[in-house]
Amino acid sequence: MPPRLLDWFPILRWSGSYGRQHAAGDATAAAVVTLLLIPQSLAYALLAGMPAVTGLYASMLPLVIYALMGSSPVLAAGPAALRSIMSLAAVGGVVATGSADFIAASLLLAVLVGAMLLVMGLLRMGFIAGFLSAPVLSGFVTASGLLIVMSQLPHLLGTPLRSENLWVFVQSLWWQRGEMHGLTGAVGLAALLGLWASRHFLQRLLRRLGLPQGAADLLVKAAPLLILVGFIAIAQTRDWANQGVAVVGTVPQGLPGLALGSLLGASASTLQALLLPALLIAMLTFVEQISIAQTFAARRRERVDSDAEMRAMGAANLAAGLTGAHAVGASFSRSAVLHDAGARTPAAGLLTAVLLGITALFFTPWLHHLPLAVLAATILMALGSLLDFGSFGRTWRYSRADFAAQALTFAVTLLVDLVSGLMVGVIASLALHIWRSSRPHIAVVGNVPGTEHYRNVLRHEVLTHPHILGLRVDESLFFANARYLEDRIGAELASRPDVRHVVLQCTAVNEIDASALESLRSIHQRLQETGVQLHLSEVKGPVMDRLKRSDFLEQLSGRVFLTHHQAVQSLLEETPPHA
Amino acid sequence: MPPRLLDWFPILRWSGSYGRQHAAGDATAAAVVTLLLIPQSLAYALLAGMPAVTGLYASMLPLVIYALMGSSPVLAAGPAALRSIMSLAAVGGVVATGSADFIAASLLLAVLVGAMLLVMGLLRMGFIAGFLSAPVLSGFVTASGLLIVMSQLPHLLGTPLRSENLWVFVQSLWWQRGEMHGLTGAVGLAALLGLWASRHFLQRLLRRLGLPQGAADLLVKAAPLLILVGFIAIAQTRDWANQGVAVVGTVPQGLPGLALGSLLGASASTLQALLLPALLIAMLTFVEQISIAQTFAARRRERVDSDAEMRAMGAANLAAGLTGAHAVGASFSRSAVLHDAGARTPAAGLLTAVLLGITALFFTPWLHHLPLAVLAATILMALGSLLDFGSFGRTWRYSRADFAAQALTFAVTLLVDLVSGLMVGVIASLALHIWRSSRPHIAVVGNVPGTEHYRNVLRHEVLTHPHILGLRVDESLFFANARYLEDRIGAELASRPDVRHVVLQCTAVNEIDASALESLRSIHQRLQETGVQLHLSEVKGPVMDRLKRSDFLEQLSGRVFLTHHQAVQSLLEETPPHA
Repeated sequence: MPPRLLDWFPILRWSGSYGRQHAAGDATAAAVVTLLLIPQSLAYALLAGMPAVTGLYASMLPLVIYALMGSSPVLAAGPAALRSIMSLAAVGGVVATGSADFIAASLLLAVLVGAMLLVMGLLRMGFIAGFLSAPVLSGFVTASGLLIVMSQLPHLLGTPLRSENLWVFVQSLWWQRGEMHGLTGAVGLAALLGLWASRHFLQRLLRRLGLPQGAADLLVKAAPLLILVGFIAIAQTRDWANQGVAVVGTVPQGLPGLALGSLLGASASTLQALLLPALLIAMLTFVEQISIAQTFAARRRERVDSDAEMRAMGAANLAAGLTGAHAVGASFSRSAVLHDAGARTPAAGLLTAVLLGITALFFTPWLHHLPLAVLAATILMALGSLLDFGSFGRTWRYSRADFAAQALTFAVTLLVDLVSGLMVGVIASLALHIWRSSRPHIAVVGNVPGTEHYRNVLRHEVLTHPHILGLRVDESLFFANARYLEDRIGAELASRPDVRHVVLQCTAVNEIDASALESLRSIHQRLQETGVQLHLSEVKGPVMDRLKRSDFLEQLSGRVFLTHHQAVQSLLEETPPHA
Repeated sequence: MPPRLLDWFPILRWSGSYGRQHAAGDATAAAVVTLLLIPQSLAYALLAGMPAVTGLYASMLPLVIYALMGSSPVLAAGPAALRSIMSLAAVGGVVATGSADFIAASLLLAVLVGAMLLVMGLLRMGFIAGFLSAPVLSGFVTASGLLIVMSQLPHLLGTPLRSENLWVFVQSLWWQRGEMHGLTGAVGLAALLGLWASRHFLQRLLRRLGLPQGAADLLVKAAPLLILVGFIAIAQTRDWANQGVAVVGTVPQGLPGLALGSLLGASASTLQALLLPALLIAMLTFVEQISIAQTFAARRRERVDSDAEMRAMGAANLAAGLTGAHAVGASFSRSAVLHDAGARTPAAGLLTAVLLGITALFFTPWLHHLPLAVLAATILMALGSLLDFGSFGRTWRYSRADFAAQALTFAVTLLVDLVSGLMVGVIASLALHIWRSSRPHIAVVGNVPGTEHYRNVLRHEVLTHPHILGLRVDESLFFANARYLEDRIGAELASRPDVRHVVLQCTAVNEIDASALESLRSIHQRLQETGVQLHLSEVKGPVMDRLKRSDFLEQLSGRVFLTHHQAVQSLLEETPPHA
């Protein structure tokens, strides 16, 4: 088999040796994760502004594709909270929520995210994850969590509130106060309380009641689904739908078809407007996925192939868009469930998809009476991991500049919208980095008497000569700091009228990019015009190789010395101090 | 006098000791530069899509303001080719060229550029110039030069051609071929030939005719103005305007008034649309200005105060917008003239402004019959310094990646528009830098037998221990490369099942930003879960100080060692190899 094919489809590596010992773990894990995935998938579809059934669609073919192409046995692909609200924000910014165009645009967004991830995986562009710095990411995720809370409160309490951003939310809270549907609110809060109690007390209660560990564990994991089923039963018998409680309504039965018609209906202007949001969602999806994959891979001392992960998630998103679902990603909570339940291979994901398919085929009519308030409660209970307010304090103590980027991202996400927030965060990180890099440490150096060493004149007792200026550059030279070198040399020369030779000690220069080369050219030319020679010393091999490809060394008025000491010695001999 | 005031208005430093010896040089330089500035200012206004007279306005108050606030005696502020075509592109993208709104928006753009430069100067944000890498800048400038040629050909030849970008230009060339106004074309080509000949042969000719050096120099410098006057005279006597030759037309006489009414008429949407172009023009203006200022300051062994320069050019642009002119910048050609003619202080600029004021007061009626084709020829002759095709070859040989950024910028500028081109260039430079930084050099190190030195296992014969993994990180850790460290450690551990201790040798780590700290936390936690301890060695002082402000060191399972050798020795004693 060509190695290329094995790289693309890791399933070809493990499926050959698949046996009963794997199947047991995978089947258990798939069953447990399905219990969690059914309510989550419906809820996250709601969060993305999509029909509930599309949550099930997002949990079928995308999971199959990820199982074929992904490298991690426990990474749970499918609908995820952050992706859903970003999809809502991105698509809602282009077409009206709730329209047929909205669904088409949501699918298109998933296809775009998928295509971008696939291409970036092909081009090995994992480095783009680097654009999202940790403080920016945490500021963004926390603000997104708050926005999710705001978006779910109307469903939870039966209040008509708008929640595009904090500003709109507060305004609509002001105008709509008092208007709340009592029964919906009671149902929502009861569901929330039930989910909370089942997470925090059910385990202990069941153990006290004498249930064995395994059974108690399974019951706790099934609790969200059981609560959901319980509310469906009550809603149906009491006919809540006719008392004004919003319910899911008719859910089409069966497996998803190809949504090509819907996709092709999207306009070119919609496509264009979704490009930037799709890029941001692709970056975010990859960062989240890799961080989850690495966490679990480390526990198993496995390696994560980030290119394969990108391709797999890209293909999964393509599959999501083509089968009528919104963008998908990796879920930390479900990955943890897969890991704890003993998933051994990606076959667990395949099996989960089959179980979801069975649900879609046979159980969707039952979902008709499911109150939206219960789904909202499901979403709110899953938010814990998104809200990390402690991170602000940690960043503030560690670095004020990083904190500024974090706070800015948080504020823009909350007050404007998610796409702008993430965009501003990326720009802030980059600006911060360029600002930090723009003033590299450059020391004037002199000779430590009796040695061949050269040290900073400000920190050591060293010998200097009025005709020779030795400068040690303590960083690689690139476009952000190249101009500062020009500035600095200009300033040093303005205060040292006797200097005839400038020697740049390049010990710590790992790279000189084309901008820095231009700066060196300018420096050289300006020095030459005032009769000063420019020399280099201790240039590293790779840097020297590259310089030889330009004509800089041929034009250089001075020389390149192996050591700084040699430079100073030769120049002193040629230009004696008393000259 | 408060030092703050002296910093803001360098004129207060030099005006006290101003004397006759300065006045002579300044007056000569001002006279010579005025000869060049009159035709250039009219031509650059035309290039910006503005009435010709606004070129004179751009050469009055802005020059006065720069003389008061600027630090360079020879920097020539005022209308400049690149700024003018960028102004046209930016404003033309928002409102229709030639409308009253167009003028209002051009002034608004100048005010925005001015305000941004002023604020950036106040906040000492010179680092933003670093966003424009040298290859991107040169790709952009060369493409701009070609766009200027395209924009002037219609005026030069009397052909109606559109020139927003190369694509539009080629299309309109195809449809409009043949339609050319014969007389206009003849005038334009004659002017171009005249200007070219005066630059290349006039000096030699005059010397052969026996003129003294000084007189010949002055005549050569006056030649563009003389040619202009000559064409005005012929156009008037032959009444070219009635034969279809486009002329400047009625030019209002007198000094510019305050253009507040025009400025306040601009709509909020225009303001918003101009923000990004204004930022890019501000960056470009600053980069150009600093590079010109540094070139001449070096020849005089003077220092350039980049914050003062930013403030001065900001205020000059505010003055331009408020007195009815488009955005201004620094001109290399006129700065060179000031330098060569012996300008001693910024008073030369003041005097130039006065001479331009006299022109505006008394000579504008004469401009009525000036053919636009002659101004177009003036612009084309000034383009030489913008077109630098050789730079592509140099960049290609030096660095393929830098070349890619340069070519992309060139192509987008030429095929789409100037604003997109520069924007894409900035993004490409940043992406390139993040990509380069994303994989720092990390070496597995071992002990050089018999010493306390540790070296790369791939390059040296060194001793390692199966329980201890020593890694030397050869760069500062920040958001772009933090994740790679996680990757790399994960990969090393996956292939070394016996490792119990990971020691990071931080000799070359000058900084650990908040993202890298988060990565270290993740690495630490993942290692801890598999029973591996993380240690640090040779952490630099400032890095250590910062780490102490987080709780990372308290949570660290391992220790921080002064030297890598100490780390390995202690760990070997605690965990003997045979354990």
